[in-house]
Amino acid sequence: MSESQKQPLEIFGLKSDLIHPGDDIFSKIKAAFQNASVLPQEHDILAVAESALATAENRVICLSDIRPGLQALEYEKLYQIDAREAELVIREADAVFGGVFGVLLTLKDGLLCPNAGIDNSNAPDDCVIFYPENPTKSAQKIMNFVFEEFGVHIGVIIADSRTQPLRLGCTGVAIGAAGFLATVDKRGDTDLFGRPLTVTRVAVADNLASAAEAVMGESNESTPFALIRNANAVFDPDAAGIVTIPPDECMYWSVLKKSE
Amino acid sequence: MSESQKQPLEIFGLKSDLIHPGDDIFSKIKAAFQNASVLPQEHDILAVAESALATAENRVICLSDIRPGLQALEYEKLYQIDAREAELVIREADAVFGGVFGVLLTLKDGLLCPNAGIDNSNAPDDCVIFYPENPTKSAQKIMNFVFEEFGVHIGVIIADSRTQPLRLGCTGVAIGAAGFLATVDKRGDTDLFGRPLTVTRVAVADNLASAAEAVMGESNESTPFALIRNANAVFDPDAAGIVTIPPDECMYWSVLKKSE
Repeated sequence: MSESQKQPLEIFGLKSDLIHPGDDIFSKIKAAFQNASVLPQEHDILAVAESALATAENRVICLSDIRPGLQALEYEKLYQIDAREAELVIREADAVFGGVFGVLLTLKDGLLCPNAGIDNSNAPDDCVIFYPENPTKSAQKIMNFVFEEFGVHIGVIIADSRTQPLRLGCTGVAIGAAGFLATVDKRGDTDLFGRPLTVTRVAVADNLASAAEAVMGESNESTPFALIRNANAVFDPDAAGIVTIPPDECMYWSVLKKSE
Repeated sequence: MSESQKQPLEIFGLKSDLIHPGDDIFSKIKAAFQNASVLPQEHDILAVAESALATAENRVICLSDIRPGLQALEYEKLYQIDAREAELVIREADAVFGGVFGVLLTLKDGLLCPNAGIDNSNAPDDCVIFYPENPTKSAQKIMNFVFEEFGVHIGVIIADSRTQPLRLGCTGVAIGAAGFLATVDKRGDTDLFGRPLTVTRVAVADNLASAAEAVMGESNESTPFALIRNANAVFDPDAAGIVTIPPDECMYWSVLKKSE
């Protein structure tokens, strides 16, 4: 098959009925494949919405049980975020850098994210959903489940959505990955003029998480899974995790930290 | 056709021979469609790499002509960026916030981006490539060309790639768009429990730019175009542009600005 006739990248949205706290994510995934009449193939990549996984993992916390501390009450005043939710963000976050209306900017497991990944959309009343406890470990379990169930090696992405600096709207981002290299280092490659590229790493997992986001939806569309086919990825069953960079190599951080 | 059998999102990479300064981008796009044996259909979205567009627009500047000022020489010392390139970044940027090795963090036309979009990859020797002069205007021209040439209404994205805070690797981002709504506001929608969503806007153009990035490549792969089919987008020939947010609504910025 010639390069110009290469198969297109394909992304299938896989719908699910409502996922409740404690549900078995594996049977939900299996059912979603069956409902969509799409079966996973060797070297497909399955994107799983972190909120669906976290709900199945029972990461739901009810705010009524939470007593906010002084810092949380201060954040409520400053950023109009529910003090009980702010309290949970403070407990979950590795660092809180500041905030805007309703949101605290935090560091969580090396990821810069709003509210330490704590979300109140699609959570039961007066409750919030934490991030999955270990997104990459869950991705590995899902990868293994699909191999046992369907006999194919796939990659798995645990996908979240968040804004980028000064951009309106959310894009997909991978908070966990397994079965393929989340980042491909192209610095050994040459540019169109045959010179070595200086700084070019491609965030394959983030690009594919955004592609999945384009079919998964964020509201009541209940499409928590997406199957990605013909992805230009490097597959390796032992590959796991998302690579974050040392703060001093991050241009955003190098400016952010000045305000600490 | 039932929801569960909805057509998958498809992304075709469209290769091109090397694009030289001053080349006609329209004929390159037409040739890329023909080489890939893929013709645009109604409501497809074409992603165009900004570097290819900028080269065709002759936005190539040779560093040998540039005399760096004091600030540029200071940035060279601080961040090991070529003082002549730093001088161009200073001239092009609306603001320079700081930097890391080889990169200055800048504001350019409301977009937070490295080096004001000035790139030395895939540029002729000792030269750099500026951003296209008006990416959205160029997107509209390409949209109109495709309608005249193929008789179909498409959306067009001018795609760049950049890192996200604390993430390793680049993801796709739209710096210009036409023919569809770049951002969809879902705040009127309800979540899975029927409650109104608080803050949920989806950056459709950025998600699709990342999806396109997954097939376009960044080095010598010479795939400067990608055709996106079955995108869940709102098409409107009059829609144009990328929405940026007021700095005080951006959680990153609200922290960034403290360091100004």
